[in-house]
Amino acid sequence: MCNACLIDSVRESALSRRDFFRRSAAAGLAATAAGTLAARPALAQSSGKVVDLTYTLTPEFPTFDGKPGISLDPDKDYAADGYKIWKVSFFEHSGTHVDAPMHFAEGGLSVDNLTAESLICPLCIIDLKAKAAEDPNAMVEPEDIENWISDNGDIPEGACVAMNSGWGAKMGDASFRNDPEGNFAFPGFAKSATDMLLGMGVASIGVDTLSLDPGNSADFAVHYSWLPAGRYGIENLANLDGLPASGATIFVGAPKHANGTGGPARIMAVL
Amino acid sequence: MCNACLIDSVRESALSRRDFFRRSAAAGLAATAAGTLAARPALAQSSGKVVDLTYTLTPEFPTFDGKPGISLDPDKDYAADGYKIWKVSFFEHSGTHVDAPMHFAEGGLSVDNLTAESLICPLCIIDLKAKAAEDPNAMVEPEDIENWISDNGDIPEGACVAMNSGWGAKMGDASFRNDPEGNFAFPGFAKSATDMLLGMGVASIGVDTLSLDPGNSADFAVHYSWLPAGRYGIENLANLDGLPASGATIFVGAPKHANGTGGPARIMAVL
Repeated sequence: MCNACLIDSVRESALSRRDFFRRSAAAGLAATAAGTLAARPALAQSSGKVVDLTYTLTPEFPTFDGKPGISLDPDKDYAADGYKIWKVSFFEHSGTHVDAPMHFAEGGLSVDNLTAESLICPLCIIDLKAKAAEDPNAMVEPEDIENWISDNGDIPEGACVAMNSGWGAKMGDASFRNDPEGNFAFPGFAKSATDMLLGMGVASIGVDTLSLDPGNSADFAVHYSWLPAGRYGIENLANLDGLPASGATIFVGAPKHANGTGGPARIMAVL
Repeated sequence: MCNACLIDSVRESALSRRDFFRRSAAAGLAATAAGTLAARPALAQSSGKVVDLTYTLTPEFPTFDGKPGISLDPDKDYAADGYKIWKVSFFEHSGTHVDAPMHFAEGGLSVDNLTAESLICPLCIIDLKAKAAEDPNAMVEPEDIENWISDNGDIPEGACVAMNSGWGAKMGDASFRNDPEGNFAFPGFAKSATDMLLGMGVASIGVDTLSLDPGNSADFAVHYSWLPAGRYGIENLANLDGLPASGATIFVGAPKHANGTGGPARIMAVL
């Protein structure tokens, strides 16, 4: 299916499901808003190593819909003003960025209402590189979570669970976004896995790809369930290879513009 | 002096001094770039308490030049697309935000080149509330730094030194920015103080007001010396009252758009 067809298909599906999600969003937000998850910074064993998980945002950075994600126009300049300021314009879901619940849930939490406590989290990284090497649309599935727990212990409440599919190695190449036929093709989460994480009180999920759902998703099932449940997502994470499966703390520098659906974020991890 | 006159005056002064600062910027950046300061996250004694130092950014948020700092235009919406995205436009120096060296130093570090290590810092807070209650243009001066050191010990290399003038209590009122005559009036740093901090290897300075320099500054002396020396600043910090003079760690979620002079940042502290 071409990208345009896929988007049309998703739109129709979304329209028919909107009332359902509106209802579940209201219920989910009341019960499990990310903003009410307890603080668990887990920094007490910090070694002081910092890893930047943020890509530099440029007009060339790959975007889901293909149009440039950011542009800069001059506002003040050295010659005329003695200093420099840009007027910056961006589409919220560009670069390394946060998806707030409101992105897919009318009435859901906007990005400025995510609490600081929910933005500093124990970071659990699921290595999906072997599966993704076999299938560009590989998914984090319940058994991947079970295997992680078996190796590393329970996932802490309030954690960020991130997929490391190895996709960062493709950054700058068309294969970061598409297969050779031009279809979206990249790994993501399966809804069965994120439903499991919902029950564990996980605050956020993160991916090193363009979308929480895999490229070949026909229904954006994760976007349409995880976000309406009051949790947030992170897309286009960089440098996950520099971190252990367990033990790091992620600092999610989500933007705080009023009524935002998300936006470019400075994201760092501390070991 | 009216705001417009002041800006004209500063512009002329800036123009005549530009060559000097261009030279000192190049020298300073080579020697003391914020990006090369060592990492000192100092998180090992963390209690887990998180304080959000970021104001919500709205079009009404006070700005230095008086024009709205941000605007949102629809890009995608639930009814037509099944999800929501805003196109966001802002002037970089709006809201709680970072001043990168490039803001006042042609050739200086852009915001995307500030390293992650320089964005996670021990936070030292200088209480200027008593002085600011007497004089709305009060400054952090060398003796305030000496007093802080006398009370709290040395300022760690790589620290962020922030002024708490109590100005946050004025947020939402015209007095946050101006005196009754309409002149800029708010506390800031004295250049003699920031010169002292330069020698201590401090990574950044922060203020709970609109500008690193006090409102009645005629020459932006701190902007024109601190930033060209390769260090960065933070303006409009919120909630400093919730933190001790020493012992917190600040996470500066600086934006990472290529070639940026700074921008709105999510800033949090951990105790």
